[in-house]
Amino acid sequence: MASVQPFPEVEHQRALFPEGLMLDCGVHFAPLAVAYRTYGRLNAARSNAVLICHALTGDQYVAETHPVTGRKGWWAHMVGPGLPVDTDRFFVICANVLGGCMGSSGPRERRPDGTPWGTDFPTITIRDMVRAQKLLIDHLGISRLLAVVGGSMGGMQVLEWAATYPESVFAAAPIACASHHSAQNIAFHEVGRAAIHADPDYHGGRYWEHGVIPARGLSVARMVAHITYLSEAALTRKFGRRLRGANAITFLEDVFEVESYLRHQGSSFVRRFDANSYLTITRAMDYFDLAAEYGGDLRNAFAGRDVRYFVCSFSSDWLFPTSESRRLVQAMNAAAARVSFIEIRSDKGHDAFLLDEPEFHRALGGFLAGAARALGV
Amino acid sequence: MASVQPFPEVEHQRALFPEGLMLDCGVHFAPLAVAYRTYGRLNAARSNAVLICHALTGDQYVAETHPVTGRKGWWAHMVGPGLPVDTDRFFVICANVLGGCMGSSGPRERRPDGTPWGTDFPTITIRDMVRAQKLLIDHLGISRLLAVVGGSMGGMQVLEWAATYPESVFAAAPIACASHHSAQNIAFHEVGRAAIHADPDYHGGRYWEHGVIPARGLSVARMVAHITYLSEAALTRKFGRRLRGANAITFLEDVFEVESYLRHQGSSFVRRFDANSYLTITRAMDYFDLAAEYGGDLRNAFAGRDVRYFVCSFSSDWLFPTSESRRLVQAMNAAAARVSFIEIRSDKGHDAFLLDEPEFHRALGGFLAGAARALGV
Repeated sequence: MASVQPFPEVEHQRALFPEGLMLDCGVHFAPLAVAYRTYGRLNAARSNAVLICHALTGDQYVAETHPVTGRKGWWAHMVGPGLPVDTDRFFVICANVLGGCMGSSGPRERRPDGTPWGTDFPTITIRDMVRAQKLLIDHLGISRLLAVVGGSMGGMQVLEWAATYPESVFAAAPIACASHHSAQNIAFHEVGRAAIHADPDYHGGRYWEHGVIPARGLSVARMVAHITYLSEAALTRKFGRRLRGANAITFLEDVFEVESYLRHQGSSFVRRFDANSYLTITRAMDYFDLAAEYGGDLRNAFAGRDVRYFVCSFSSDWLFPTSESRRLVQAMNAAAARVSFIEIRSDKGHDAFLLDEPEFHRALGGFLAGAARALGV
Repeated sequence: MASVQPFPEVEHQRALFPEGLMLDCGVHFAPLAVAYRTYGRLNAARSNAVLICHALTGDQYVAETHPVTGRKGWWAHMVGPGLPVDTDRFFVICANVLGGCMGSSGPRERRPDGTPWGTDFPTITIRDMVRAQKLLIDHLGISRLLAVVGGSMGGMQVLEWAATYPESVFAAAPIACASHHSAQNIAFHEVGRAAIHADPDYHGGRYWEHGVIPARGLSVARMVAHITYLSEAALTRKFGRRLRGANAITFLEDVFEVESYLRHQGSSFVRRFDANSYLTITRAMDYFDLAAEYGGDLRNAFAGRDVRYFVCSFSSDWLFPTSESRRLVQAMNAAAARVSFIEIRSDKGHDAFLLDEPEFHRALGGFLAGAARALGV
């Protein structure tokens, strides 16, 4: 895997904003590109738009075949005709995050002079991602979203959307997330970043000049992250301690099935994700601290906003445990916000929000249907 | 850190066994060296010997200045005159594990032809480590140990000692461990191994030929392992989300204190530990499955043995959670073994067994004192 080639460039549907935007780091970034996909039709009143915010390694290809991997969309079982996010009823939008690598402005995109941004891409925050999405929503002529929905880093964006642009959000569903990234979560991200930096193919972030990518480092980063997405129960059920060969104690690598699975996760990830994007986006997650943006009091992020919230956690999620969702709900309640909360019993860990969890699908579908009814959609 | 030098060779106190031993992998390994340290004096009846088994990255320098790092012994607050493992009363022994890098036979030691074993060192198990220690105990003229004590991988060795050589063990204290390594624990180890293998300075395990060590890979391995040793509460208390600089969002590396701490942990570790040893010993932990050695029934590992057990867990340890210790205790009870169990309330995570935990120290000290009284020591 010493000289894996960069993944192919693909044409993405994009909106271009020559005026750009002012970032939290103080840089005015322009021009700005936002790559996005839509599903369903915007109604005449422009009142049925649902924005989906993707997670760290997701992208805008929510409910269709992915142009790079050829695999089906990451929420294809959630978004579509008759599904919980019903495209017969809603106009669904998903944008590649600012800093991503599927067509939105990010380290992999080219500067006006034709060279990639690489590590010169500015440091961004979750709020910057949301600002970029706001430009897109304005561009699409939508003044208020029926709902903003997302899990994990997507949930962080949902929280920012409702806090920053409450007049543009009727309902908000932050799923499997928290008001800030914990020290442990930052630490796991830091291991991944250290692995990327340690890869000599990283070349100080200018790997494109050498026609390679830091595949080994990025693969290790993906492996450690992947463990945090699963529960012990999920890992055990999938693999237990099953050995790949009968005569286990005679060779050194890939003895346990879980290892071969993780190695596969790592090596397939590098074929679809950019290392500098990974560094940029994990940093944005680590910076996220909603209370800090509102004077250190989380209630201020919810008070005085006419947004209905749906908070959802999964019982075996140890990356964003239920206790973090409860903390959100308590602050919402203290701010007299309208909130419903559900903890889904699941042993699938953090990844549960991406998987077949019927109770979760019913609950989210019911919340969206209720919001639609309240708005007369 | 591209070309860190191997750490210096140090003279260690060793016992040599020309006849060697037969390993679980089927290799007859000879000659065999076991490096060890002792504290206190063996009494005339040879009945006051306490064997301490060290953890993955520990070694035999339990209660004295370490010859490589210059730091005090890893259990200096536990082992000494008047301390819970009282060297005024007990003859304390600790051996570097087979496969280690502080003088016992391992990948860093030289073959008869003068070249290091490296990756040619055979695959070993926890039971092999215990077999090597048994040779040492016989060599010291001790037919029965008053107690065998150890935490984490040391606890695995304690369990093997009592199961394999019950006639040589009066009391056994497996601490912060489990009857087997879980899928999640194996997965975290695998990330560390992948990081080492990904380092070009690894050179297929023959790094000594190039005068370098795979410092970056080993450092990443240490970082991820270190996170698993701490609790979220311990990480948060130590670092919270404190930023190292005032103007946080403007630079990319080492923004959070936890990152700088982890990087330091990684870079100091490589100056005292051998990468091939790390691969060998983590594998041995991953193979550990005590029930599997006894027909798939954990009770068989305890039944018919006249050993008194002291099982101890820590409430915030998520690497070897209390549920795993309870499983041990249940099997011991079902096998009519004599066992006392304590869960120590602590928010320090797995590392608690190495730290200042007065309740733990009192409990272990009390158990050893009781065993000594029962034997008339």
